[in-house]
Amino acid sequence: MRAVPALRIAVGPPGHRGERLAEQAVVAGGGTIVRPGGATADGLVWLDGADPAGLRQALTAWPAVRWVQLPWAGVEAITGAFDHDRIWTCAKGSFAEPVAEHALTLALAGLRRLPERITARTWGKPGGTSLFDADVTILGGGGIAVALLHLLAPFRVRATVVRRRADPVPGAARTVATADLDGALPGALVVFLALALTPETAGIIGAAELARMDERAWLVNVARGRHVDTAALVDALRRRAIAGAALDVTEPEPLPDGHPLWTLPNAIVTPHTADWPEIVTGLLAARITANVRHLAAGQPLEGVVDASAGY
Amino acid sequence: MRAVPALRIAVGPPGHRGERLAEQAVVAGGGTIVRPGGATADGLVWLDGADPAGLRQALTAWPAVRWVQLPWAGVEAITGAFDHDRIWTCAKGSFAEPVAEHALTLALAGLRRLPERITARTWGKPGGTSLFDADVTILGGGGIAVALLHLLAPFRVRATVVRRRADPVPGAARTVATADLDGALPGALVVFLALALTPETAGIIGAAELARMDERAWLVNVARGRHVDTAALVDALRRRAIAGAALDVTEPEPLPDGHPLWTLPNAIVTPHTADWPEIVTGLLAARITANVRHLAAGQPLEGVVDASAGY
Repeated sequence: MRAVPALRIAVGPPGHRGERLAEQAVVAGGGTIVRPGGATADGLVWLDGADPAGLRQALTAWPAVRWVQLPWAGVEAITGAFDHDRIWTCAKGSFAEPVAEHALTLALAGLRRLPERITARTWGKPGGTSLFDADVTILGGGGIAVALLHLLAPFRVRATVVRRRADPVPGAARTVATADLDGALPGALVVFLALALTPETAGIIGAAELARMDERAWLVNVARGRHVDTAALVDALRRRAIAGAALDVTEPEPLPDGHPLWTLPNAIVTPHTADWPEIVTGLLAARITANVRHLAAGQPLEGVVDASAGY
Repeated sequence: MRAVPALRIAVGPPGHRGERLAEQAVVAGGGTIVRPGGATADGLVWLDGADPAGLRQALTAWPAVRWVQLPWAGVEAITGAFDHDRIWTCAKGSFAEPVAEHALTLALAGLRRLPERITARTWGKPGGTSLFDADVTILGGGGIAVALLHLLAPFRVRATVVRRRADPVPGAARTVATADLDGALPGALVVFLALALTPETAGIIGAAELARMDERAWLVNVARGRHVDTAALVDALRRRAIAGAALDVTEPEPLPDGHPLWTLPNAIVTPHTADWPEIVTGLLAARITANVRHLAAGQPLEGVVDASAGY
């Protein structure tokens, strides 16, 4: 077995608060750190998920980079920097379990009326809805959907997954293509949004889709706020056309003070915290270490982005 | 095969709002209904779980009854009517899934800071705690514990079950006897109470037990309020000696207006609604039908109460 020369990995942008942990993760994967002005870099770990111009500049400075690791699961803010000259990987899949956990938490909280219970100052009437044996619909067929299906399995739900192509997703009762979304909304007790944001999926839940949901249904969004027409949602919640909405992401985000979603009794808003910094840092470090190791060994990388599809 | 004469089943107390559904369930199980003043009764379905005197009176009126079906999972309010002359069954196990679901809901809601999120009127800081790969402790080794372990399995928790005897519970990493409770509290991210209320388990969680729990831990009670020393709990929550408590049952119950648990930011109170009337009615009817059928066929009944142990 011949010794493989260590991969030279740059980490940026310089001074980012995650820099040190990322460098440690690179070293743990067997890579060596290249500093600005130093030798050629084979790979780049880029910790800012919202600065495509800075990233393009870094790639100009490190022209030999053949792999770029991005920090978040969603990369829609940085697609402007993508090219087909190298492999792009992101954190998708890596955060799937905590995000799926948050989605389940929000669904159960809605069904068990926690907005009412938590704000109550007096003993109320019993009541609630069980997730056991329910029909649910999940938009998105990636890592979050798979992790969520795993958490939902003991509830014996019948899950319909809606995704770009209708390739079956393990654990789903059926998988349909996005063109058949309309038929997947009626009857679902919970509609989960766990899909990537692309030009095709922005606004995928609007007034017409909300109108197709059951009156007893909850909408749970752990994807991106722009998937939902916020004005149409506020209107549906006010009219109680659906039972409620639990949103970890909003449009606009952060949700401004005074927004009706803060005070609607059938809305739950959490501050984009399905994956929160403490957990993300550890999981991203593990992804970086694994990908440095895979790249050195010539193995497939984890979380590869389709630069054309944009996720 | 000889024809088995239909069992004669009485339903009481007369005029109870569940009477008609219970009678339908008896008939669905192949039994015939005996009315007051009618023929001898072989069995009695008693729908009031808190009136031992009324039940004793009914048993005097129907002396040949060899089986009594009780309406709730917890029978501590009616143990005064128990005797060893017949088989006693209750709803235990039957409501296990919705109760376990409520317990998981409360745990996730606490760990994901929903009390803070649901009352927020402005975008907050991200943060929370994941249940994935955590240590949890469950007091009780009956149907609710088993159902809860099933829901917790995809989270890869390491569960310690604490029960009267240390017989292993499927799905638990370890099972210990109640005498070893002290050792099962430190390190648990969530301590679930899912045990029967008996003289031995009343007050099982007091100041000393709360002091052994981690500062980051949540206490979840879906059993009975009297398992917990409420004053000690309020004190622990005020000092943030534990992260929080989520209680579906309280002592006193209903929790009176103005009680500190209503306003403590790290307490969640739900109104004894882990199993709520709509779901209980259907599940109890199924239990009645099954037990009428089993009794006629000479098979073991479901939810048999140990009249000596009191659950």
